[in-house]
Amino acid sequence: MKLASYISQGIPSFGVWQESGIIDIPALYQTSGTSGAPASVVELIERGPALMETIKAMAANADPAAHRTPADVELLPSVPRPPKFFCIGRNYVEHAKEAGFEMSPNPIMFNRYNATLIGSGQNVLYPKVSEQLDWEGELAVVIGKPHKGQIAVEDAMDHVFGYTAFNDITVRDYQFRTTQYIAGKNFRTTGPLGPVIVTADELKDPHNVEIVTRVNGEQMQKDNTASMYFDVPFIINHLSEFIDLEAGDVIAMGTPAGVGFKRNPPIFLKPGDVVEVDLSGIGVLKNTVVEDS
Amino acid sequence: MKLASYISQGIPSFGVWQESGIIDIPALYQTSGTSGAPASVVELIERGPALMETIKAMAANADPAAHRTPADVELLPSVPRPPKFFCIGRNYVEHAKEAGFEMSPNPIMFNRYNATLIGSGQNVLYPKVSEQLDWEGELAVVIGKPHKGQIAVEDAMDHVFGYTAFNDITVRDYQFRTTQYIAGKNFRTTGPLGPVIVTADELKDPHNVEIVTRVNGEQMQKDNTASMYFDVPFIINHLSEFIDLEAGDVIAMGTPAGVGFKRNPPIFLKPGDVVEVDLSGIGVLKNTVVEDS
Repeated sequence: MKLASYISQGIPSFGVWQESGIIDIPALYQTSGTSGAPASVVELIERGPALMETIKAMAANADPAAHRTPADVELLPSVPRPPKFFCIGRNYVEHAKEAGFEMSPNPIMFNRYNATLIGSGQNVLYPKVSEQLDWEGELAVVIGKPHKGQIAVEDAMDHVFGYTAFNDITVRDYQFRTTQYIAGKNFRTTGPLGPVIVTADELKDPHNVEIVTRVNGEQMQKDNTASMYFDVPFIINHLSEFIDLEAGDVIAMGTPAGVGFKRNPPIFLKPGDVVEVDLSGIGVLKNTVVEDS
Repeated sequence: MKLASYISQGIPSFGVWQESGIIDIPALYQTSGTSGAPASVVELIERGPALMETIKAMAANADPAAHRTPADVELLPSVPRPPKFFCIGRNYVEHAKEAGFEMSPNPIMFNRYNATLIGSGQNVLYPKVSEQLDWEGELAVVIGKPHKGQIAVEDAMDHVFGYTAFNDITVRDYQFRTTQYIAGKNFRTTGPLGPVIVTADELKDPHNVEIVTRVNGEQMQKDNTASMYFDVPFIINHLSEFIDLEAGDVIAMGTPAGVGFKRNPPIFLKPGDVVEVDLSGIGVLKNTVVEDS
């Protein structure tokens, strides 16, 4: 199943994304006279697998009147307000090399603030203070089952709800202006997340996903998540050593080689550019860079 | 005005903290038959100054039946789920020196996840994987008026709702295990925040607050926020250059000299220790370290 969050007729909502259109979940409850609709994708995830089964069954019999077409909606971040958002740095050996870094024996982790997330189709504001806007296509994991305490490697995949694509757009000079990456990784609107969440029963192997990043149609990154140095169970085990994972948490698994700032000459995003992160089995996360007026 | 968030009779709530007791805000609405109570401290802040005035007036005429005594409640983090939590590193020259670091021309920033926050009186779990648990007493700023885009230095104080105390408890070996601080700064339960928020009309000068940190009654840190290298307006201007500030955002302003890990010999927190961060005009944030069973 694919889940999308969006604005439809001015109202934030979410639904099941299908070839034939989007089945709006609040509308599904309303038209069937069922109470207790979840209020958001995160609440849907929190309420666990039984609710997912209910929604699957309701969606299978959905009244077409409840449907929206993709053209009717403005996509929001596929997880609009995750409780936590972790980014893993240097998780592809070739990317660490191109950036001039050694691999780290422990994963490098940093934070993405929710305020910077946008959906596929929403605009990335070109920074007023930097010309070093760079792309980073990534697979992102969405946590389902929460857990207090450390999660064993062998149990880790039970805690995955699904997957989505992430573009960890980075302002390079601000990333390296101090020892900590936070500023360069958190410019407003630089966190495209989407287009949808694909549930783990549908995308069975997160370690065999093709990642392609294109700028104005030209391929800039191409790799497979099989190249990740730390895999999904390792990272879930590693994070949960120090912090409790919650339903809706997002873990962006790092970017492969092919970013712009170490090219010769460097290539950076500029206003008018269209950047796409295309993940096999998930879809295309597409955003345009615009002037911040 | 002082605001506290707490659990009372098993239910999360929040109220006005006074010498004579706590006036519970949801109960205040209920007993006066008024609708539209805010659901949390963050919603109260979001709804702006007019609501604060309404609550002040209601509290002044409060029915004592709506009161709770401090002994009746378990305090929660003074801002239970801030939209964003920024920490400023190396903001006191003497602390940078003791830690062996140069000052940075731009503030070092990192993130604290909400999942790690606790209230005054709640327990800090001793990590299972490290013996390097260290205190960091700090002043924290709570943002009131949100703003899209950069906030000018001269307007910055208009965006402050109030202040609270923070203990940025750090697991030192994990802090320095990779280039990024996230793990060492985000062990579960290591973020005491409280005991209360003091509004900016009551604590008028955040640059003249005495900070004292005690462990088992012994003074470990003592300084005044006048020693901060980057002041509150500078930091608000600096953060808002890249990200939009929202009501309820928290900015921890860094810790003065006197942490444990660079003492000779080093001193770390251990199970049974009581750590207090005492800020003039705000109160004492007090927590006990316990074994993580």
